[in-house]
Amino acid sequence: MLPLPYGRGSDGFCYNVAPDYTRDALAGKAITNRSIAMKKLRLFTPGPTMIPDEVMLHMAEPMDHHRTSGFRKLIKEVTEQLQYLFQTTGSCLIFTGSGSSAGEAAIVSSCYGGQHKALCVRNGKFSERWQEICDAFDIPNVSYDIEWGHGAKGPDIEKQLDANPDVDTVIVVHSETSTAAVSDLEAIAEVTRRRDKILIVDGITAVGAIPVKMDEWGVDLYITGSQKALMLPPGLAFVAVSDRAWKRIDSVKPHAFYNSLLKYRQSMKTFDTPYTPAITLVRGVHWVLQRIKAEGLENIWKHTRLMADATRAAAKAMGIELFAADPVDSVTSLRVPAGVDEAALRKTMKSKHGMQIAGGQGRLKGKIIRISHMGYCDQFDTLSVIAALEQTLHSMGHAVKLGSGLTAAQTVFAQAG
Amino acid sequence: MLPLPYGRGSDGFCYNVAPDYTRDALAGKAITNRSIAMKKLRLFTPGPTMIPDEVMLHMAEPMDHHRTSGFRKLIKEVTEQLQYLFQTTGSCLIFTGSGSSAGEAAIVSSCYGGQHKALCVRNGKFSERWQEICDAFDIPNVSYDIEWGHGAKGPDIEKQLDANPDVDTVIVVHSETSTAAVSDLEAIAEVTRRRDKILIVDGITAVGAIPVKMDEWGVDLYITGSQKALMLPPGLAFVAVSDRAWKRIDSVKPHAFYNSLLKYRQSMKTFDTPYTPAITLVRGVHWVLQRIKAEGLENIWKHTRLMADATRAAAKAMGIELFAADPVDSVTSLRVPAGVDEAALRKTMKSKHGMQIAGGQGRLKGKIIRISHMGYCDQFDTLSVIAALEQTLHSMGHAVKLGSGLTAAQTVFAQAG
Repeated sequence: MLPLPYGRGSDGFCYNVAPDYTRDALAGKAITNRSIAMKKLRLFTPGPTMIPDEVMLHMAEPMDHHRTSGFRKLIKEVTEQLQYLFQTTGSCLIFTGSGSSAGEAAIVSSCYGGQHKALCVRNGKFSERWQEICDAFDIPNVSYDIEWGHGAKGPDIEKQLDANPDVDTVIVVHSETSTAAVSDLEAIAEVTRRRDKILIVDGITAVGAIPVKMDEWGVDLYITGSQKALMLPPGLAFVAVSDRAWKRIDSVKPHAFYNSLLKYRQSMKTFDTPYTPAITLVRGVHWVLQRIKAEGLENIWKHTRLMADATRAAAKAMGIELFAADPVDSVTSLRVPAGVDEAALRKTMKSKHGMQIAGGQGRLKGKIIRISHMGYCDQFDTLSVIAALEQTLHSMGHAVKLGSGLTAAQTVFAQAG
Repeated sequence: MLPLPYGRGSDGFCYNVAPDYTRDALAGKAITNRSIAMKKLRLFTPGPTMIPDEVMLHMAEPMDHHRTSGFRKLIKEVTEQLQYLFQTTGSCLIFTGSGSSAGEAAIVSSCYGGQHKALCVRNGKFSERWQEICDAFDIPNVSYDIEWGHGAKGPDIEKQLDANPDVDTVIVVHSETSTAAVSDLEAIAEVTRRRDKILIVDGITAVGAIPVKMDEWGVDLYITGSQKALMLPPGLAFVAVSDRAWKRIDSVKPHAFYNSLLKYRQSMKTFDTPYTPAITLVRGVHWVLQRIKAEGLENIWKHTRLMADATRAAAKAMGIELFAADPVDSVTSLRVPAGVDEAALRKTMKSKHGMQIAGGQGRLKGKIIRISHMGYCDQFDTLSVIAALEQTLHSMGHAVKLGSGLTAAQTVFAQAG
């Protein structure tokens, strides 16, 4: 049997639509909802995000080899584009892997058990992951726990460093995707730089979405991934490395091979990668970063903030509470209204409207929903997800005035001009 | 400026064709060679290999999310397909990374410095890489060096184990891509299983190309990558794990996080991956493995051997010597004839005929050329690369009878029926 198109079961219908629709269709009933019938899915998950058709087709162009002058030219250009993206003159390295591979590379390449001690700032699921990496590689570390939904602040980091004078490395998440909270990275970097600590930053849902100024602020290692603001499929991750970070890295004997920054630095001298890269995705990032450069980062940051502002205004008008005390612009977390079943809400959003949003993770499971504003998402997309949320809450019997969220968002857009 | 299509410079011509053509075109001279004018490149490199257009377009279908029942169904099906591919009932895990990430995962998850000692069988560039990983992670190891071009044999491994009784892990490359030599894996596995050693096998250019029977032979950890016989872009790697291997892994405290088999086993209980997977490539592998199952592995192994046999016969007829003493069927290495400049030969093959083959690596640089027979490559493709080689050698002034290689290959094909 030859395979059916991806995403469709042996019945010919999408795997990922509600069973009701498949049942109805098999029973000969019409599927009246075009989003479902035509599989018009809209991704508002904070990664993967929506992807321009052009870049998908560009990645589907005929295959070629990576050990060629053409591919080296591509890598060189992507490297320069990444310097713009991170706002740095430092090294920018391209990893084949998820954001976690880049995070591991940054941590294990710059810390070695016995020689270094990390301060792990924990305010969500992803910040906890970086501590798990320290533990897996026997890197001594201390935790600084912040209430979920809050970001880290400069003075608090300063206090932590006072209390832990043997810490020489600080690991912090810029935009904590699990809670949609932002840390005050500029102030944190001012502290770590003044005190001569190495600052490792998870910028996975920050870079390309909200202001990131690596050199101006003084961040040492900044990481991101392909499937967020870069509007690509997952599979690539990036690490930007300051000169200060290289000095540290050169003094470490890391337990690293695949995720080794030193291996990458060596290969990048000739614009090669140490291991076979995900060639098609590198094409994609080259395409996307040219568009980002043409649009201008300042404009993109402004746009992302506008989408977030409109969503927050809509939520307020609909009587839905914002979860994060320090909300980030790349993704919005909303408290699920009392009496509403979060799983049923997301299921209806998807199965009835083809609109995929994210739920809470870990301790926030069932308590929040999350809506991405990153990448290939404009005001009409944002209005669409707000409309679907209004309709879904309405159909679930929750008191929401139809049009209230949309009107509030429209007002924000109109004011922005 | 909006980006030009990938692979084309600002002059509109391909990056990776010879400068002559770009110059000619800019000077208004006609490019008479359609392969170059239309960028009709044929990849005979031993990874990446040629990719069916259908799978590239399939991967370009609209994006969806990985934490869905649809994607879990896909992962479950790919896992079952991989069991067929590796011929095992053991676990099959899907890594986002190159083959090296899978190799690192197999090694560091099953060996821990101080507790284990590995025998690193070295007969080419890739087998040396696995030893570098042992060294990077402080895993004690001994080398067994075999002349490049030769494969490892069962009795030799037995002797090595006699001489190193504290070795409990053997790392061997099944098909050493850098030399195109095959090891006698069935005999080696018989030895390691009888002596209760863990056997880790690099099957990167073996799996899906030549006979691989993980369970029947008794291999403990078998790895492969997406861009070889699986005819996909690079970016995914796979590890098959025996029950014996899991027992070992459960006794180890690994220095691993991203490339940790334990993390994968945990997530795979619900058909999830621990980190965001390269979604589009997972679609691709699902598609390809369905085709492979429909075709049947025995037929594929026979087909790959036929391509290799035809190429070897052609080389003999053209007076070109085979490099490998133990030639593998997935890739053929040929000695560059005396008086022929290897770099010029490959350059002409590519710039004049759009035919990309590989040179030698490390100590074999300039001495051999390598031609892949893996994946999406049929007899007419094989005849094409032989024809280009004939023409290139002829145009370089090397004595070769035009048609001699083609005739020999045709004869092999005809005999196969």
